[in-house]
Amino acid sequence: MTTHRFEPTRFHNALGSHEPVLTIADGDTVVTTTLDAWGFDGAGVKRAEAPNPMTGPFFVAGAEPGDALLVRIDRMVPNRDSGWTFSVLAPNVVDPGAVAALPPRERVFWTIDADAGTCRLAEPPPALAGWTVPLAPMLGCFGVAPAMGQAISTATSGPYGGNMDYRRFGPGTTVAFPVATTGALFHLGDGHACQGDGEIVGTGIETSFEVTFTVQVARGRRIGWPRGEDAESIFAVGNARPLDQALQHATTEMLRWLGEDYGLDPVAASHFLGQAVRYDVANVFNPAYSVACRIEKRWLAGLGPADAP
Amino acid sequence: MTTHRFEPTRFHNALGSHEPVLTIADGDTVVTTTLDAWGFDGAGVKRAEAPNPMTGPFFVAGAEPGDALLVRIDRMVPNRDSGWTFSVLAPNVVDPGAVAALPPRERVFWTIDADAGTCRLAEPPPALAGWTVPLAPMLGCFGVAPAMGQAISTATSGPYGGNMDYRRFGPGTTVAFPVATTGALFHLGDGHACQGDGEIVGTGIETSFEVTFTVQVARGRRIGWPRGEDAESIFAVGNARPLDQALQHATTEMLRWLGEDYGLDPVAASHFLGQAVRYDVANVFNPAYSVACRIEKRWLAGLGPADAP
Amino acid sequence: MTTHRFEPTRFHNALGSHEPVLTIADGDTVVTTTLDAWGFDGAGVKRAEAPNPMTGPFFVAGAEPGDALLVRIDRMVPNRDSGWTFSVLAPNVVDPGAVAALPPRERVFWTIDADAGTCRLAEPPPALAGWTVPLAPMLGCFGVAPAMGQAISTATSGPYGGNMDYRRFGPGTTVAFPVATTGALFHLGDGHACQGDGEIVGTGIETSFEVTFTVQVARGRRIGWPRGEDAESIFAVGNARPLDQALQHATTEMLRWLGEDYGLDPVAASHFLGQAVRYDVANVFNPAYSVACRIEKRWLAGLGPADAP
Amino acid sequence: MTTHRFEPTRFHNALGSHEPVLTIADGDTVVTTTLDAWGFDGAGVKRAEAPNPMTGPFFVAGAEPGDALLVRIDRMVPNRDSGWTFSVLAPNVVDPGAVAALPPRERVFWTIDADAGTCRLAEPPPALAGWTVPLAPMLGCFGVAPAMGQAISTATSGPYGGNMDYRRFGPGTTVAFPVATTGALFHLGDGHACQGDGEIVGTGIETSFEVTFTVQVARGRRIGWPRGEDAESIFAVGNARPLDQALQHATTEMLRWLGEDYGLDPVAASHFLGQAVRYDVANVFNPAYSVACRIEKRWLAGLGPADAP
Repeated sequence: MTTHRFEPTRFHNALGSHEPVLTIADGDTVVTTTLDAWGFDGAGVKRAEAPNPMTGPFFVAGAEPGDALLVRIDRMVPNRDSGWTFSVLAPNVVDPGAVAALPPRERVFWTIDADAGTCRLAEPPPALAGWTVPLAPMLGCFGVAPAMGQAISTATSGPYGGNMDYRRFGPGTTVAFPVATTGALFHLGDGHACQGDGEIVGTGIETSFEVTFTVQVARGRRIGWPRGEDAESIFAVGNARPLDQALQHATTEMLRWLGEDYGLDPVAASHFLGQAVRYDVANVFNPAYSVACRIEKRWLAGLGPADAP
Repeated sequence: MTTHRFEPTRFHNALGSHEPVLTIADGDTVVTTTLDAWGFDGAGVKRAEAPNPMTGPFFVAGAEPGDALLVRIDRMVPNRDSGWTFSVLAPNVVDPGAVAALPPRERVFWTIDADAGTCRLAEPPPALAGWTVPLAPMLGCFGVAPAMGQAISTATSGPYGGNMDYRRFGPGTTVAFPVATTGALFHLGDGHACQGDGEIVGTGIETSFEVTFTVQVARGRRIGWPRGEDAESIFAVGNARPLDQALQHATTEMLRWLGEDYGLDPVAASHFLGQAVRYDVANVFNPAYSVACRIEKRWLAGLGPADAP
Repeated sequence: MTTHRFEPTRFHNALGSHEPVLTIADGDTVVTTTLDAWGFDGAGVKRAEAPNPMTGPFFVAGAEPGDALLVRIDRMVPNRDSGWTFSVLAPNVVDPGAVAALPPRERVFWTIDADAGTCRLAEPPPALAGWTVPLAPMLGCFGVAPAMGQAISTATSGPYGGNMDYRRFGPGTTVAFPVATTGALFHLGDGHACQGDGEIVGTGIETSFEVTFTVQVARGRRIGWPRGEDAESIFAVGNARPLDQALQHATTEMLRWLGEDYGLDPVAASHFLGQAVRYDVANVFNPAYSVACRIEKRWLAGLGPADAP
Repeated sequence: MTTHRFEPTRFHNALGSHEPVLTIADGDTVVTTTLDAWGFDGAGVKRAEAPNPMTGPFFVAGAEPGDALLVRIDRMVPNRDSGWTFSVLAPNVVDPGAVAALPPRERVFWTIDADAGTCRLAEPPPALAGWTVPLAPMLGCFGVAPAMGQAISTATSGPYGGNMDYRRFGPGTTVAFPVATTGALFHLGDGHACQGDGEIVGTGIETSFEVTFTVQVARGRRIGWPRGEDAESIFAVGNARPLDQALQHATTEMLRWLGEDYGLDPVAASHFLGQAVRYDVANVFNPAYSVACRIEKRWLAGLGPADAP
């Protein structure tokens, strides 16, 4: 149960079977830093290229294909006081006929006050002069090396994780990824100080972070898509286009989960989901959209043994 | 501000410019009943054909094209103690390759205890033997007559409302519909005792209700899609397939709303939505899917005058 | 086998159970005229409102729900020498990020020379100065009254037909529609002098026509979606969004057709379609897109009895 | 202008920046062999794993990012007399409600007679006893190394090409790929003896081939998506889900092509495409679907200088 402090010096724009930067053991904790989506670090220095340069990969000793890698996000603290967003809705989230009326996209800056737990636009338009946003850190892009020796751009996502941009992937959440290669090869980066559903301006509040995470290998735990657990919910995430297919992946994964861990056959799981399910649109911007099929834990009470994710 | 008690005797399977059953004034309240989705009433008698037979239409004096009709759902009480659902996930919400493993769809019954505020399966599978669901009434299908003399099946939905199956359309919510014809011609029915996101088993807990609602005409208030307000949120609903397009409609409508009522130009609205937006998948089963673009009121504090919806 | 000459005086913007304009017998032929998509007739006079005002409906004696109405398009001749199109691609057929670069949409005129069988832009840009288009008439919107008393805008389409905008719906083609109401109630209009796949500028070359068609009732022939036959192909058309779902409807209908009329069980039909199928994107502009699942007749030779559609 | 004979000994299941197997010059021709989709060679020996093991990559001297690599498919001859397909439509190409009625998927064999130019089922169902399919070879999966050091599974496709499964990618066709890395790194495999639109049974008639191809580097020719030219057409291919987005990519690429090579500004190109465009559904089975935006050359006559692709 070692705690490693790791300062990254090289970064990857694809999740893949790159040479590991550090080997860690099952149960270890890592304290490290992440660059922002365009490669700027805590000192405002550009250290790598866009998009979403990754810290890692970390080789987790003992992780093998067929296992799940559990990653608990212990802590995320912005390590600088500025972040940035794009200034206008992405053209794919409004009606095609409304796109031409959107103003050109610019990059705008935010001031992050980690002590106060707030973010505010550095130069707000008058209508937002007094507006502050609660600091709510999350990892936009993280995951393991994909199967079959693939290396896939950090712009997109898949069963291995990647650029899911889901606001619940923050401190206190444990995420399970399907291990596809020996050592799992965990990557992380693209932290956001806050983000609404869908990442509909094409960014969260992009900044650099100090991140603490702890890994655990769930041996023989075969999963198909990333799964998560936080204080109030469990959820499965599907990544695809259109949203309909992302939702199908997430629902199918949850159906399997409810069967394997909660003893619900397809009919019982259908009854349960029909009343209890909540869907979150994690991102509707990236090449693959992400949808979470989520169950609040209050609904799970009394159903059966829960040792997830 | 009259309160009408109206007992329906004929029903419609399409929202359209049917002969009104009652003329009511701006500000009036109506207490009436709705059949379940297959036409069964509070006594368990089949009174009309599936799908979703509507009570109404109610002619609202003074409502004209270009206005919005505001409908506050004051109260919904099940008027019988049984409801029903389908027993298995709809084939379109799981991966196509997982469809063949789903068991055949059956109709199953629930016991509704309005005093206790709960629903439970009449014959639960063992894994759900102790499982109860909170009573959370909602209107599955309601709205005004569509434009251009159309009459559109209660299976689907559009700018005029219809079969949106959104769980937030319950008591305490006020919904605004774009009026397309003189008198608005308001229809309602298809009440659910509870329903998760998406209506993913193809039903909520279908039952009959006594419903109380109050209408208000917002003159000259041009809206494009149904809008709603409840205690905690405001939201706009888009209806289309795939989910991506429903989300585009809802987002475009919210963009307009934030501009007109909250003084946010497209850039300010983009900043705001980028951090604050929540999307709900209302239904992912009907011919048109429904997505709500929702803002919790706590985010609106301090933005400007709010007199919506 | 009477031939009726019918000059329309009123028009409908929805396909529905309107009062018939003429009752015709099984086997009869009708010679009539259609307005263009914005309601202009052969003299250039505006006679009805947009969109797509329909001539009809024609009551076909003997047609009952559960039958198919076969409509052979015998002849289509433009009855004026001008047509019009929109000047730019619809925003939904290019990448969302490319929409803002499209110029504003204008309405432009074409000169139609029916004798020469050509169309040309009235004021072409220099790059198209010498460009002519072959006259290839088609009906953009036609079909029968929808089920359940619905009346549905001529902007869209469904199982009953409607605004499918398929370039193969021209002279020589026979189309089968599923009859949903006594008399079938056949409507037609929205003729195009030419149109590529997809109706991607939002119009064909819109003009008014003299149209001759012949009806036949196929008793007891239950079909789910419009089917067509021309000199070289048979095809089934599905109408929905996204294209994926339109393609699913069309393929499912063809699977049924191959089973019922050609003796191919699902495996034999799969082998056959796997090698022989052609898909046409009829329209990718209207609220419902249209995809045709098409088989060239040369592939059908030797398979079994063909009496379709 | 050397002709190389290359016999592959190792294969890749991802298109990526693998070590080249051969360096060739601009203008060279290569005669090589490809395995079938599951890795079987001309002798029926399994030489590599599924899916779609690639021959190559070939390093094309002089090809640099920003160029296009033109690959002319000179000749494709099956090098064994058997192929295989799946026996039933893929579940995603029929209505979700029709999936459960499809029989289980099996692998079935075909006899290929290269001299006669035909394929026939080895054990046909009675309804197909006399049915033969014309031999129409095509490459299912081919392309260059993707950008940013990615390595992407041969199951899917993108701007770099990949598993597009388009029936027009056969002998006589020249295909242009956007070069993303020095040497382009061309891969090929997954030949089909025949295939309909969409690859709707999940396969073409899968077999191994001797393939002859010739490369040419188009320096400075920036393209976004694969483009092709055969005797009768030019076309651009977009790869994505849903079909709507693949069509958007293909149309946007064709718009650019018509502007750069044919002198058509967006309005002129819109007029042209509105009447002339044909869309082919190349595949509607793989993780990314493929749509071709195609123009028959007869439409291009008289428009301007054509030196494409």
